[in-house]
Amino acid sequence: MADKVLIYSRFPKTMMARFAERFELLDTGGKKATEAFSADELGGIRALLTAGGSPLGAEAMDLFPKLGAIVCYGTGYDGVDLNAAAARNITVAHSPGANAASVADIAMTLMLATTRRILVADQYVRSGDWAASKQSPMMRPQAGMPGRRIGVYGMGEIGRKIAARCAAFESEVGYFSRTKYDLPYQYFPTLEALADWCSVLMIAVRAGAETQHAVNADILKRLGADGYVVNISRGSVIDEKALVAALTDKTIAGAGLDVFEKEPHAPDALTALPNVVFAPHIGGHTLESHVAMQGCVLANLTAFFEGKPLPYAVKSA
Amino acid sequence: MADKVLIYSRFPKTMMARFAERFELLDTGGKKATEAFSADELGGIRALLTAGGSPLGAEAMDLFPKLGAIVCYGTGYDGVDLNAAAARNITVAHSPGANAASVADIAMTLMLATTRRILVADQYVRSGDWAASKQSPMMRPQAGMPGRRIGVYGMGEIGRKIAARCAAFESEVGYFSRTKYDLPYQYFPTLEALADWCSVLMIAVRAGAETQHAVNADILKRLGADGYVVNISRGSVIDEKALVAALTDKTIAGAGLDVFEKEPHAPDALTALPNVVFAPHIGGHTLESHVAMQGCVLANLTAFFEGKPLPYAVKSA
Repeated sequence: MADKVLIYSRFPKTMMARFAERFELLDTGGKKATEAFSADELGGIRALLTAGGSPLGAEAMDLFPKLGAIVCYGTGYDGVDLNAAAARNITVAHSPGANAASVADIAMTLMLATTRRILVADQYVRSGDWAASKQSPMMRPQAGMPGRRIGVYGMGEIGRKIAARCAAFESEVGYFSRTKYDLPYQYFPTLEALADWCSVLMIAVRAGAETQHAVNADILKRLGADGYVVNISRGSVIDEKALVAALTDKTIAGAGLDVFEKEPHAPDALTALPNVVFAPHIGGHTLESHVAMQGCVLANLTAFFEGKPLPYAVKSA
Repeated sequence: MADKVLIYSRFPKTMMARFAERFELLDTGGKKATEAFSADELGGIRALLTAGGSPLGAEAMDLFPKLGAIVCYGTGYDGVDLNAAAARNITVAHSPGANAASVADIAMTLMLATTRRILVADQYVRSGDWAASKQSPMMRPQAGMPGRRIGVYGMGEIGRKIAARCAAFESEVGYFSRTKYDLPYQYFPTLEALADWCSVLMIAVRAGAETQHAVNADILKRLGADGYVVNISRGSVIDEKALVAALTDKTIAGAGLDVFEKEPHAPDALTALPNVVFAPHIGGHTLESHVAMQGCVLANLTAFFEGKPLPYAVKSA
């Protein structure tokens, strides 16, 4: 009999095909687990697969008395209550680094699209305004990448890949993280100092209680009227209300956002703004990134059911 | 009395302010020179400033019997008949390299925006389709940058900057140019071979008679159904009709275009396509690029009126 895995979050069916070859999947299809399956079925569950950003606390864990492994699809595991898991002897695992390049690339895409105003540019050509030689204030020359000061918030695998890419664009790179690393970029001891220095703030920090709303009205003000913010981490790191205000009153010049506080919802006040480029949380959304993340999931689940240590277990609980 | 310079192409007035401090400008404002000024006025013109892509042949040169210098704003000078200029002892000068980083950056912007489908992504969020969990075939995962084969056509300053940036994205880089250089990228002896190998063709070659329609139906077919073409050079390098056909029948996956055959006009059949990202020839359009190009123009004009060799003269005529 195949080992059973509860699919706790909503994933595309095509994506689940590779897992279904090895495990019996109980797919909630986005419904509550208790609505999708009987208490009896849930009682036998030893492993579940979830999106790391989806809330998964003590109460949910208690639905599965035999649960031994929570496997997150992707790098993040901010939705999982690590203390509650540890108290129940549940191992939490993820897919570290598997999507780092893909996420770093969406950060670069959003930064370039925002600073070079590519949405406005595309519309200017498509609408015929260019052919009609209509003036467009939004198409005035902007600062480019050489010499631009890019501030990277968080220096994990994604932050390092963003920094390396920005350096190739002849930009200056600075960063703030809890730890100062041996890297060829300027270290700033606080987020405030980084925001004062840089003109683009790239948010690549791991989400959690200590980074909740770290990018607030004060930080945005420090970025200034020529400043941009790009977020490919989690929506929770930015105070979204403060961001809407800063974009509306031109406290900052623009933003590129792949993540939001309440996905898949982005506030109307935000999506109405012309100086933002949006993406629907597609940072890790490339073919090779999915293959790599699926590889981590399979390795984690296989090891668990064989009674071995999970290769990509989250280190500290 | 200040030296007179005829402004032969249409430039923003704000951009001319720096030149007006040093020279007396006769600005055609985009009109024909003979309509804007009397034959007498034109007869005294010794230097003119033009956009390098604007046609400027023997007949036009003969309007200015005293013309000694044609100064192009930007890197290109493909609109200028070099043989006609040489026959009249007119020096042609440009702004080499001044906008190379800015143009390379728009190439990267267009490649990333096209391959990661950022226009569709932005619209998917803004329209509310994401919030409504609507399926979007255009939002399926695509190949990312690591391991992607990028073919650079032309290895001048812009091509080299594109190649360096792509390498930082962990892509493989190949190139075709008349000359094989000592560079850490794979050299292909023909454009056909490069197109067979790569999945993104970045056009960075200098425009001219020998590159006219070099990217034709055959080259596009070699790129294949997963292939993209990005053009930041000149519209003349691509057979635009063949491109429209290839994009329409999915011979290739998409395109990113900053330049067109008949600017500022882009054909309706092209601008109606969803798998293209457009920009209105803004490659060199950054603040620092304009400052650098203006520096070259001032240096060229100053040297000319002082009777010295022009520092950025076009080498071969």
